[in-house]
Amino acid sequence: MITAGIIGATGYVGVELVRLLLAHPEVGKLSLSSVSFEGQNIADIYPNLRGNLRGKTDGTLGDADAVVEESDVVFTALPHGVAEKYAASCVEKGKKLIDLSADFRFGEDEETFRAWYGKSWEFLAVHDESVYGLPELNREKIRKARVIGNPGCYVTAATLSLLPVLIRNLVKCDLIIVDAKSGITGTGRNPTATNNFSESGESFAPYNVGKHRHQPEIARNMSCAAGKPVNVVFTPHLLPMSRGIIATVYAPLVKPMTAEEIHEIYAAHYENEPFVRVLPIGSTATTRNVRGSNFCDVSVHVVNDGTLLETVAALDNMVKGAAGQAVENMNLMFGFAETAGIDQVPAAF
Amino acid sequence: MITAGIIGATGYVGVELVRLLLAHPEVGKLSLSSVSFEGQNIADIYPNLRGNLRGKTDGTLGDADAVVEESDVVFTALPHGVAEKYAASCVEKGKKLIDLSADFRFGEDEETFRAWYGKSWEFLAVHDESVYGLPELNREKIRKARVIGNPGCYVTAATLSLLPVLIRNLVKCDLIIVDAKSGITGTGRNPTATNNFSESGESFAPYNVGKHRHQPEIARNMSCAAGKPVNVVFTPHLLPMSRGIIATVYAPLVKPMTAEEIHEIYAAHYENEPFVRVLPIGSTATTRNVRGSNFCDVSVHVVNDGTLLETVAALDNMVKGAAGQAVENMNLMFGFAETAGIDQVPAAF
Amino acid sequence: MITAGIIGATGYVGVELVRLLLAHPEVGKLSLSSVSFEGQNIADIYPNLRGNLRGKTDGTLGDADAVVEESDVVFTALPHGVAEKYAASCVEKGKKLIDLSADFRFGEDEETFRAWYGKSWEFLAVHDESVYGLPELNREKIRKARVIGNPGCYVTAATLSLLPVLIRNLVKCDLIIVDAKSGITGTGRNPTATNNFSESGESFAPYNVGKHRHQPEIARNMSCAAGKPVNVVFTPHLLPMSRGIIATVYAPLVKPMTAEEIHEIYAAHYENEPFVRVLPIGSTATTRNVRGSNFCDVSVHVVNDGTLLETVAALDNMVKGAAGQAVENMNLMFGFAETAGIDQVPAAF
Amino acid sequence: MITAGIIGATGYVGVELVRLLLAHPEVGKLSLSSVSFEGQNIADIYPNLRGNLRGKTDGTLGDADAVVEESDVVFTALPHGVAEKYAASCVEKGKKLIDLSADFRFGEDEETFRAWYGKSWEFLAVHDESVYGLPELNREKIRKARVIGNPGCYVTAATLSLLPVLIRNLVKCDLIIVDAKSGITGTGRNPTATNNFSESGESFAPYNVGKHRHQPEIARNMSCAAGKPVNVVFTPHLLPMSRGIIATVYAPLVKPMTAEEIHEIYAAHYENEPFVRVLPIGSTATTRNVRGSNFCDVSVHVVNDGTLLETVAALDNMVKGAAGQAVENMNLMFGFAETAGIDQVPAAF
Repeated sequence: MITAGIIGATGYVGVELVRLLLAHPEVGKLSLSSVSFEGQNIADIYPNLRGNLRGKTDGTLGDADAVVEESDVVFTALPHGVAEKYAASCVEKGKKLIDLSADFRFGEDEETFRAWYGKSWEFLAVHDESVYGLPELNREKIRKARVIGNPGCYVTAATLSLLPVLIRNLVKCDLIIVDAKSGITGTGRNPTATNNFSESGESFAPYNVGKHRHQPEIARNMSCAAGKPVNVVFTPHLLPMSRGIIATVYAPLVKPMTAEEIHEIYAAHYENEPFVRVLPIGSTATTRNVRGSNFCDVSVHVVNDGTLLETVAALDNMVKGAAGQAVENMNLMFGFAETAGIDQVPAAF
Repeated sequence: MITAGIIGATGYVGVELVRLLLAHPEVGKLSLSSVSFEGQNIADIYPNLRGNLRGKTDGTLGDADAVVEESDVVFTALPHGVAEKYAASCVEKGKKLIDLSADFRFGEDEETFRAWYGKSWEFLAVHDESVYGLPELNREKIRKARVIGNPGCYVTAATLSLLPVLIRNLVKCDLIIVDAKSGITGTGRNPTATNNFSESGESFAPYNVGKHRHQPEIARNMSCAAGKPVNVVFTPHLLPMSRGIIATVYAPLVKPMTAEEIHEIYAAHYENEPFVRVLPIGSTATTRNVRGSNFCDVSVHVVNDGTLLETVAALDNMVKGAAGQAVENMNLMFGFAETAGIDQVPAAF
Repeated sequence: MITAGIIGATGYVGVELVRLLLAHPEVGKLSLSSVSFEGQNIADIYPNLRGNLRGKTDGTLGDADAVVEESDVVFTALPHGVAEKYAASCVEKGKKLIDLSADFRFGEDEETFRAWYGKSWEFLAVHDESVYGLPELNREKIRKARVIGNPGCYVTAATLSLLPVLIRNLVKCDLIIVDAKSGITGTGRNPTATNNFSESGESFAPYNVGKHRHQPEIARNMSCAAGKPVNVVFTPHLLPMSRGIIATVYAPLVKPMTAEEIHEIYAAHYENEPFVRVLPIGSTATTRNVRGSNFCDVSVHVVNDGTLLETVAALDNMVKGAAGQAVENMNLMFGFAETAGIDQVPAAF
Repeated sequence: MITAGIIGATGYVGVELVRLLLAHPEVGKLSLSSVSFEGQNIADIYPNLRGNLRGKTDGTLGDADAVVEESDVVFTALPHGVAEKYAASCVEKGKKLIDLSADFRFGEDEETFRAWYGKSWEFLAVHDESVYGLPELNREKIRKARVIGNPGCYVTAATLSLLPVLIRNLVKCDLIIVDAKSGITGTGRNPTATNNFSESGESFAPYNVGKHRHQPEIARNMSCAAGKPVNVVFTPHLLPMSRGIIATVYAPLVKPMTAEEIHEIYAAHYENEPFVRVLPIGSTATTRNVRGSNFCDVSVHVVNDGTLLETVAALDNMVKGAAGQAVENMNLMFGFAETAGIDQVPAAF
């Protein structure tokens, strides 16, 4: 049994981590911190947790340094650009760190990070050794990693939707379109005009067209899988619902293929993946079917007379898109069963 | 054709007034102000208005004094306790004022206002002459008024649901229960944890149990109608939807009556009211059926072996519960058709 | 490890049972039947279950008799009036049955059942021995029962909200008002005009005013707790959300009490209950905080100068209001930990 | 003042027509029919209409032949393949017909209609003379038409989003991707598993990938505008909301252009269109801003280093996507102001 710490436990990703780790069979103790609510009890801020702390924590929100001190693994769920120093500290103290911001999503490529996030790095060594935490791409590296950059929510959906054909060079790389849609939890806990129910309910729109920060991360993953540069156009939209992401992806095939051929490749590629479900031909990935779980459902469709692959990937942005995948990474890093604590059966409604 | 001014045009009530007055046949010009967005254009803040200003305004948000100067009637849609000085100024200049805060909802009873809203009055004369703007209660007084206190949203539903039996002394006054539910627009434009979609969607709860500020206003109206003190317990709840209020009201009958007897009284009482629809026996008031309109639907039910009257009143909190009723008051004050500009047919969905 | 069977596995309550039992540590095998989908696979009808059957079932929907034959405990999730024969059969074969319809909610009182459900009974003996499955009321009887009538969703909320004061005769019994609100899953899987998103979204209304079938069941429970007849007026409403019930209950106190006094009684009464959380004074029960869990949150409020107790009870209508409570009953009947398989931490959003 | 008839008045499109025509200043009388509810009153089926019939109809739902007889213009809001005979009858009697099904959306091209809708035509002459009712494309022809095929909802959004660049041959025609999303009213009044709130709320997915019937209609319009074949891939998705469509369209530019250049072309092209609002650069079309109105908002974005035009078109699927556009066609056919009866200001929430 290990002790897990969460720095930034009261943000949405943080509290979702709390939910998952409270029920995790290999985590015996939780250590929590929050800048906004230091000294308060997390069960007062999130009353859903009342009476549920299970002896793993008394709920007190301490400071970040204490979390590092007490924990075997630290999850940082912080604004972009803040996790570095905790990572350095964890490495020094022989602890592991899983960061849920973008700070470790670009490996040693500081330039791209700086271009999109407007910040420089200070602790270059931790970036050098950090591993991008997408198990379907990097499982073995993750097992040995000390610092993990947990993937973006949209990015996970987009990457998983094309991985099998990118690796096999079955799609053209000059223009792949990712039209993605996310639930409102993606905007986080901070109340804004954008997530005010009165204006976001019963409404739908794209945002950050042509300039969302997940674009370079998607392109990086796809290029890495294809072994050559992949050009991605990415458009996110905001859905009038709480949880869930759909990525509808359009990728021209190198040569015409049938849906059956594509499906066979996907089914084989993901056969042993515990969290990717390739749907039967004729089915379509749907957010409801993965809600609250760590699954990513993928459906494949071939359109335009066999020349265009269209894939749909659905996941829960707070689970496989954030906290669940972070726990999956922890499981790999500590040699636990990969599904430990994240084997929830999604509800039908 | 008159000029109407709105002080506080960018709050939710303010912009709903803009929507209604832009389409009002007797309003030729609009004058708008906003503290938060002074100098900006309202169509940039509310893009729904783009290309819809119809020559009545160029959309510029000016200052409050200019609005008073330019307008024949001024609507104040401000935080509680601020409208007084504009009212005094309007009276002095021979203009009319309709206030949508609570400031003029208690007539000359400063004590109750102070007890519930924590503020004192400065311009007592305008309070003395102010009229409570519920047309179904005060139509003739409204026609002659210079200063109107527009009723609260919950209050309008609660009052209309019992008016016919209170006036006729058919219900007992020692304990009337008003269990009311409102859409989230009632929390206003300011984004908060309460109206963040992620937490308010797919959720429901009461709030301010036993201490909501609409309680004394409901009690005042009911007592006024009954001619004696009426004791009201009022519980508001927040619905996971944008617009609409339901008040479910429980009132013990003085003597057992049938639904038919009650229905006949309601139908007769509201026969000539343009905005109150008494539903046939067997139907139940529903927010969808009044959405976007100035209607208040009322259904009557007799339960507990004929001893308890249960009424349901449904209205759109932003229209009959706020901006629509304010326009109705304006229509009465200027001798326009009472339904002018507020005769929208509610949509089925 | 036992084998659990579900007759009616494709209705909403049935599939929620499947979700919970798939993750239940003491259930090794599941046997499923469905009249509507016999011969099909449940994972095709509910794709959320795909790849989640965990070796407990292959998903095939068989016939009801096979379920009885194969199972140690049978859950019947059927229309009212159909479960009797399965109960008789289970009793005969030494198996246990938990019925989620109303058939066994009235003990041996066939008259009330017939009056409200329009059907008579055939197997009187099983009714005689059946136990009403509300653990907070009947825990010890449930442990020994062979046939359980699982409580109604509204009924569970209403009963738990007043149990401590009814038992102690602290509230008057001549008129208790239960104003309750339910999510749309309560209308079930059958698509109707009532649950069509286009008309039920962004809308709210009461239904079945004065004549909902949960009224006699609430009255029965409350009378049983109070030891004398309790007169209940019950009004259900339909919320524009999927899961969750709130019961706002108004009960006049026998003598004035403070919120602190009431709270102390509730806290003590429910101290050892694993699934009832009495909220601190000042907090209000909210459906979001119990969503997906077996908790019933109860908040107590004293209004009207200490003379009226107002309680709010929140639960997930599909869990503590149906499938979760049924599993709780199973746990008690088989001597499992009461929380086994139903200890989900509710999510914050 | 004319008499307008609606055959199929109780479907969602039918009742939206009723809402608009009740408030239309040039329509003096309404004649309504419904197969499902013949003999009943529409205000009993849609209680939002209660007390709103304004002397234009008593609400009685008669038969279709009577509607044809009594009306100057007949709207057919029927399943595909049924309107033909009413069109023939209207032409014979000198009346006008506006059909809201797909029957007259393909001009004289029966083959395409048969391929996608599985039905043949009987009255070829009325197809020959029918006009496709998209005013932005065919305004002058519509003025003289006797039979109009009202465009599909998705089709209107997709077509308006690219019209200016197609006409000017600024985009390549070999692969245009239309990723579109619609509110649930698009599934109509018939309750199904798809529109059951419990499963459609808090969920999102594509449907009919690669085979939705609006694909050939979009391709036809785009090809017509471009003067050469345009190849379109179209993917519809279902949103958890009632009203609104967004089409996000990806079209490769013939040569790189700036957003400013594109915007100037759109602004000029739509300058005199009463219902198309080209948003300023930096704004993004959003369904909320057009809800309940006949506007189509279009925003233009240039991505992928100036090589890819991305447009977003937002409209209300029930108004500009169906009933509102039908009224617009009526206005043109009768020489009324084009905006008569469809000049609603969209609400901010």
